[in-house]
Amino acid sequence: MSMNLGVSERLQPILDKVTKLMQEEVLEADKEFHDEIGKGGDRWKMNARQKEIIADLQAKAREQKLWNFWLTDSERGYGLSTVEYAHLAEQMGWCVLGPQVFNCSAPDTGNMEVLERYGNEDHKKQWLAPLLESEIRSAYLMTEPDVASSDATNLKFEAKLDGDEYVFNGEKYWSSGAGDERCKVYILMARTAGDEAPRHAQHSMFVLAADTPGIEVLRPMQVFGHDDAPHGHMHLRFTDVRVPKSALLLGEGRGFEVSQGRLGPGRIHHCMRAIGQAERALALMCKRSMSREAFGRPLAKLGGNYDIIADCRIGIEQARLLCLKAAWMMDQGDPSAAAPWISQIKVVAPNMALKVIDEAMQMFGGTGISQDTPLWEMYTQMRTLRFADGPDSVHRMQVARKELSMHR
Amino acid sequence: MSMNLGVSERLQPILDKVTKLMQEEVLEADKEFHDEIGKGGDRWKMNARQKEIIADLQAKAREQKLWNFWLTDSERGYGLSTVEYAHLAEQMGWCVLGPQVFNCSAPDTGNMEVLERYGNEDHKKQWLAPLLESEIRSAYLMTEPDVASSDATNLKFEAKLDGDEYVFNGEKYWSSGAGDERCKVYILMARTAGDEAPRHAQHSMFVLAADTPGIEVLRPMQVFGHDDAPHGHMHLRFTDVRVPKSALLLGEGRGFEVSQGRLGPGRIHHCMRAIGQAERALALMCKRSMSREAFGRPLAKLGGNYDIIADCRIGIEQARLLCLKAAWMMDQGDPSAAAPWISQIKVVAPNMALKVIDEAMQMFGGTGISQDTPLWEMYTQMRTLRFADGPDSVHRMQVARKELSMHR
Amino acid sequence: MSMNLGVSERLQPILDKVTKLMQEEVLEADKEFHDEIGKGGDRWKMNARQKEIIADLQAKAREQKLWNFWLTDSERGYGLSTVEYAHLAEQMGWCVLGPQVFNCSAPDTGNMEVLERYGNEDHKKQWLAPLLESEIRSAYLMTEPDVASSDATNLKFEAKLDGDEYVFNGEKYWSSGAGDERCKVYILMARTAGDEAPRHAQHSMFVLAADTPGIEVLRPMQVFGHDDAPHGHMHLRFTDVRVPKSALLLGEGRGFEVSQGRLGPGRIHHCMRAIGQAERALALMCKRSMSREAFGRPLAKLGGNYDIIADCRIGIEQARLLCLKAAWMMDQGDPSAAAPWISQIKVVAPNMALKVIDEAMQMFGGTGISQDTPLWEMYTQMRTLRFADGPDSVHRMQVARKELSMHR
Amino acid sequence: MSMNLGVSERLQPILDKVTKLMQEEVLEADKEFHDEIGKGGDRWKMNARQKEIIADLQAKAREQKLWNFWLTDSERGYGLSTVEYAHLAEQMGWCVLGPQVFNCSAPDTGNMEVLERYGNEDHKKQWLAPLLESEIRSAYLMTEPDVASSDATNLKFEAKLDGDEYVFNGEKYWSSGAGDERCKVYILMARTAGDEAPRHAQHSMFVLAADTPGIEVLRPMQVFGHDDAPHGHMHLRFTDVRVPKSALLLGEGRGFEVSQGRLGPGRIHHCMRAIGQAERALALMCKRSMSREAFGRPLAKLGGNYDIIADCRIGIEQARLLCLKAAWMMDQGDPSAAAPWISQIKVVAPNMALKVIDEAMQMFGGTGISQDTPLWEMYTQMRTLRFADGPDSVHRMQVARKELSMHR
Repeated sequence: MSMNLGVSERLQPILDKVTKLMQEEVLEADKEFHDEIGKGGDRWKMNARQKEIIADLQAKAREQKLWNFWLTDSERGYGLSTVEYAHLAEQMGWCVLGPQVFNCSAPDTGNMEVLERYGNEDHKKQWLAPLLESEIRSAYLMTEPDVASSDATNLKFEAKLDGDEYVFNGEKYWSSGAGDERCKVYILMARTAGDEAPRHAQHSMFVLAADTPGIEVLRPMQVFGHDDAPHGHMHLRFTDVRVPKSALLLGEGRGFEVSQGRLGPGRIHHCMRAIGQAERALALMCKRSMSREAFGRPLAKLGGNYDIIADCRIGIEQARLLCLKAAWMMDQGDPSAAAPWISQIKVVAPNMALKVIDEAMQMFGGTGISQDTPLWEMYTQMRTLRFADGPDSVHRMQVARKELSMHR
Repeated sequence: MSMNLGVSERLQPILDKVTKLMQEEVLEADKEFHDEIGKGGDRWKMNARQKEIIADLQAKAREQKLWNFWLTDSERGYGLSTVEYAHLAEQMGWCVLGPQVFNCSAPDTGNMEVLERYGNEDHKKQWLAPLLESEIRSAYLMTEPDVASSDATNLKFEAKLDGDEYVFNGEKYWSSGAGDERCKVYILMARTAGDEAPRHAQHSMFVLAADTPGIEVLRPMQVFGHDDAPHGHMHLRFTDVRVPKSALLLGEGRGFEVSQGRLGPGRIHHCMRAIGQAERALALMCKRSMSREAFGRPLAKLGGNYDIIADCRIGIEQARLLCLKAAWMMDQGDPSAAAPWISQIKVVAPNMALKVIDEAMQMFGGTGISQDTPLWEMYTQMRTLRFADGPDSVHRMQVARKELSMHR
Repeated sequence: MSMNLGVSERLQPILDKVTKLMQEEVLEADKEFHDEIGKGGDRWKMNARQKEIIADLQAKAREQKLWNFWLTDSERGYGLSTVEYAHLAEQMGWCVLGPQVFNCSAPDTGNMEVLERYGNEDHKKQWLAPLLESEIRSAYLMTEPDVASSDATNLKFEAKLDGDEYVFNGEKYWSSGAGDERCKVYILMARTAGDEAPRHAQHSMFVLAADTPGIEVLRPMQVFGHDDAPHGHMHLRFTDVRVPKSALLLGEGRGFEVSQGRLGPGRIHHCMRAIGQAERALALMCKRSMSREAFGRPLAKLGGNYDIIADCRIGIEQARLLCLKAAWMMDQGDPSAAAPWISQIKVVAPNMALKVIDEAMQMFGGTGISQDTPLWEMYTQMRTLRFADGPDSVHRMQVARKELSMHR
Repeated sequence: MSMNLGVSERLQPILDKVTKLMQEEVLEADKEFHDEIGKGGDRWKMNARQKEIIADLQAKAREQKLWNFWLTDSERGYGLSTVEYAHLAEQMGWCVLGPQVFNCSAPDTGNMEVLERYGNEDHKKQWLAPLLESEIRSAYLMTEPDVASSDATNLKFEAKLDGDEYVFNGEKYWSSGAGDERCKVYILMARTAGDEAPRHAQHSMFVLAADTPGIEVLRPMQVFGHDDAPHGHMHLRFTDVRVPKSALLLGEGRGFEVSQGRLGPGRIHHCMRAIGQAERALALMCKRSMSREAFGRPLAKLGGNYDIIADCRIGIEQARLLCLKAAWMMDQGDPSAAAPWISQIKVVAPNMALKVIDEAMQMFGGTGISQDTPLWEMYTQMRTLRFADGPDSVHRMQVARKELSMHR
């Protein structure tokens, strides 16, 4: 069967425009945006300059119709395949601000997909419409502090039906983006049945306003000591939070169905962005290695640096192709056949990116972990990705199970 | 640009037939063939049963027109692309005998390509014709004992023009296939100019009969203590060996031109066969892990075995995609653009295969290095491949140079 | 020759007391100290509670005579061998505050050694005496922003003799501890000769007051986005800074002599503290692996976790023994014989600790990179250590040179 | 507590003599011995020259009283500690013949220890006495073909008491040394009870003559395709083999007790010999790297070769120190406390040696896997050691269990 992993003809001009905007403006703007954090006094409120930076970039993107690429099969978008989107995700992933410029940020894209697929008309009008315009943002509330969330059947945050309302009690954390003042809506997984139900039918998915009474933000979870403001990975407590029955998506006990559909493409996007990070790190490394001398020779020519550079290039190419293959599997229409491929890249891409970034750091010497390069922040983001959406070990388990199933 | 790495429609039925013949007959026959070595008294002469095994399998292959796939752009073959051939090479590579069954063995395929491209009519009639029918075999004489052949400009085997003849003096070793009684022709690189000529114009390529007077076989080079009979990696000495001027291919000083054209596709084929070896090892590993128990559980469920199996699968998929990409680059018609990609896979594929085979060995316990599995032989072949056609370090150097050239 | 790497009889009770104080009080106090940073408004000024924490712990240490262990060969200290000190350094290294409690912090210990060995009576009275009492602190100014400082012969910070004074011009950065308000004295390496002098005789070492006019603090260098206040790794600019001739230590052109004597033991101490960090991470990992469940079993029993834990233990033991061997070599009295051993551990210890800490993070899931464990900070410190006092590559080069020299 | 891992004063002269004999004579003789294999017609019978080689070397060793070092606590030996013996084992381990020269070969040393500790007077007279003189040799029959012998409680070879005799039925394989014509005695583990008995009390240890009727040698197990003649790792079948009750050692159900006492020191010796192998490989690698040129420079100066050499040296030093620590633990008199240390080195030493040998191979190019260096044989031996006496995974499990037990 044909398996085209290249850049299609229709994609090429879009990809070129995205790449151009990223390289010529977004990278620089990203740095300024982050330097501005907290300058207005409150790290969690964007100041005027920050708002302007985003507004300007988004305007430039929209002018060129570089918007909502993730709408893979809708007439409103380009109708891109997952493979095509993946190529874009790599370019947008060079810096944190990138995806937001094109309204392709996590967790919004996944949440919008959920709303589009499983939301009712009210949900779409209230939440999807403004999300599509980047007027508001969203969060996805899954992970919990008290259980090993890598096995999501452990989740115990409780939703109880009480008349026409569900009542929520419990805690969620690592709710990324929930710190953003623009974040208005949550997609949330809650336990609606006990162990009497089948293991994967005990949980349900809900949609609710972020300002529903009874929700407290306890704290931002820090990543390597950083609060990631103004985005934030928040720790939330729900106390008798009441939502109408219509907040339930798809049906009781079908939470995993929703989350599986949501997480597959999301993981591919994460991984392609990781490839972008790795490319950026390798470019920095190469430039440094040729512009700095020690022992009378450019760093590139010292010791094992050729080998290091070669191994980084090789690692990137392999990871990219595997991501594209996983995206292609996704495009074949059978998510369960695609699942082990997605698990493969979920292991490969962040680890590869971490390796490349770490080698880049080392090539820079102390500068490599300092404020004078973006490497440290790239590192902490990639490190996070080894947990986010499932730790390496869980994904390796899925890959092995699939493999062994073929020899039974 | 479209980059189709999948199995094309025209390839699928061919690939299915090759796979079926390999799995149902060749693997078993390969074992028998090797068990027969030396049973006729002389390890270097095939006995009747060995000849019969090969003849039978080749007949079966030819009946189904599964023959000379490497003729990638000729009307006599299928006109397969490098990508298509690569998929076949993987399947043929599951065992040593595989490629021979389809007349797709190294070094014959590369030598045939040289003869087709650079040979005169006599060369084609005398050597290419019988090679295409697998009536004779060939060897490629490059590596020399006294110099670091990884830097081929070091080669010093001498060819001197004397009237109408070239006179050869020197030694060659690791001449694979030169031990085979059917090996009748050599392609040979020799030094025809000294340091006064540019570094890559000092060597020339020749074709000559294996029984030209003055050629002595000194010994077979052993691989992990094995002579690899009846194939053999021979150590040869040439003393005043005279060949007519017409033995020169392409022109004096153009040896590297010939060898580069020859080695690119050859490396891709080697690497895809390495993928086949890795698949075979992983299949053996998985079967063992489910059929053997220790500490009350199947081996698969013990310790880090899931992780090992997953990492092997991931390694294989990444290496295969990278090989296919390199093949696709080759198909784009610019060998120098393809070269760094070929260097990438030349590093990746053998190392990956060694890792998978080594893990398979470990899963089998002592059996994994014994005569009861084919793993040890697979290991020694793959280990050889880390030197053959350039050691890892030279290929990494090529990849790094290319990378750095983009940041100048 | 006898090579005792164990805990000597005289050391055992001291080690026990240090361990007890560290485990029962310092670890907890370290956390509180760091939580207090910036609470007084200025991150660079310790608040009352911070001062109290240090004063209390130092009082407890001094009461038990647990003070200035680094005075390895002096009647004022215990006269400990480097091996003995190394065992203590491991225990003190479990947290950042540890070494300060016992007045054994870097860079003070190395600086005190320099002053003791090469300082004149005035230097000793003015700087060494209060340093021995922990009344003041010090910094070591070596690394420069504009040159590859890994090859220290590159350093270009200038000292010019002008009459009876040296005049300094240039920049230094990564001056650790120079942010501390208690830091009153600098040891500084400067270029006093040009390329006409032998390569290792162009630099000299000086001692000077931190408040000498003309010194500006440009900024703190950040480590993974943290300023490391109130310690700080400062970027300093010197403009026509004048010091008396007596500021010169040992003699013009003898800077490397001073620095080599200083850096050897310092690297051993760094490495043994890294072992302490690794032990702490492994302990955290093990506890987590037994207290958390997923898929119905404690994490410890899942996947490759046994292997991970075993490999961490094995890595720690090997690194510790190698550090102790390097310390023992140091004790034999021939620093140049000890040098390649110190290079060995400088490569091994930080990389091993990073590996263990990283695995611990992964065992904790998201918590592992959050504020709820000390792992992220341990990680960034250890990452720094792969540059500090020479990057891995330079130390590997030293080891290889030594090795090859034995086969000439 | 004092932990002397160095070379003691009494050991130094012995070690010097052993090293001198090894380096000046045994290495060369080992090569000749192996070249002679099969020259007399039968690979399994030593020819006159082979016998002479061994006799000469043993005579030289005995003249200098370099004999039976393993007798660690006997007046007949030097009374060496395990640490002291370990230093010797490293030197003797440089080549296969080494240990035999000094009558310190596996499996004889372990078997002699068993006989000395648990044998009756008849056993000692009949078997131990000639073993001590190297007049006969022995084998240890443990591993079985049909069960995962890594979990030795699986062993099912049966011993049934029938009157005054035990009757053996079953198969054993990987019985190293059982191919040697001088091998006259077997130590054998057999099942004497079923699952009704505690798991570690179902097996017993026996001693019996190799020529007892009913024992068939089915085949030699091959290692990477080699039969390892004249030593041999034999596959044996026992059919109604009858031995007197007195063949039982220590008592019924106490087989594991015997084997544990036997295997601990044996593993240390294996590992120290592995260190010797690694040292030999590193020496070969360094010499090659300085004597061969490519791209105009000695190999040592190309690419990452300095890093490779450094990492090999570092790996060796760490492994040696860990082995010596394990030996020292053994000397403290509590085998169960020493056990996890022995497991640590059993993982580390062979893997480290394999890495060093593999890098040496790569430095040599094709020569590295050919008959022109001893590397391939060293590799296959070390590869075997990752299974022998327990595979890596089982030893890692022991280390992890010990680690976790400290956090309960």
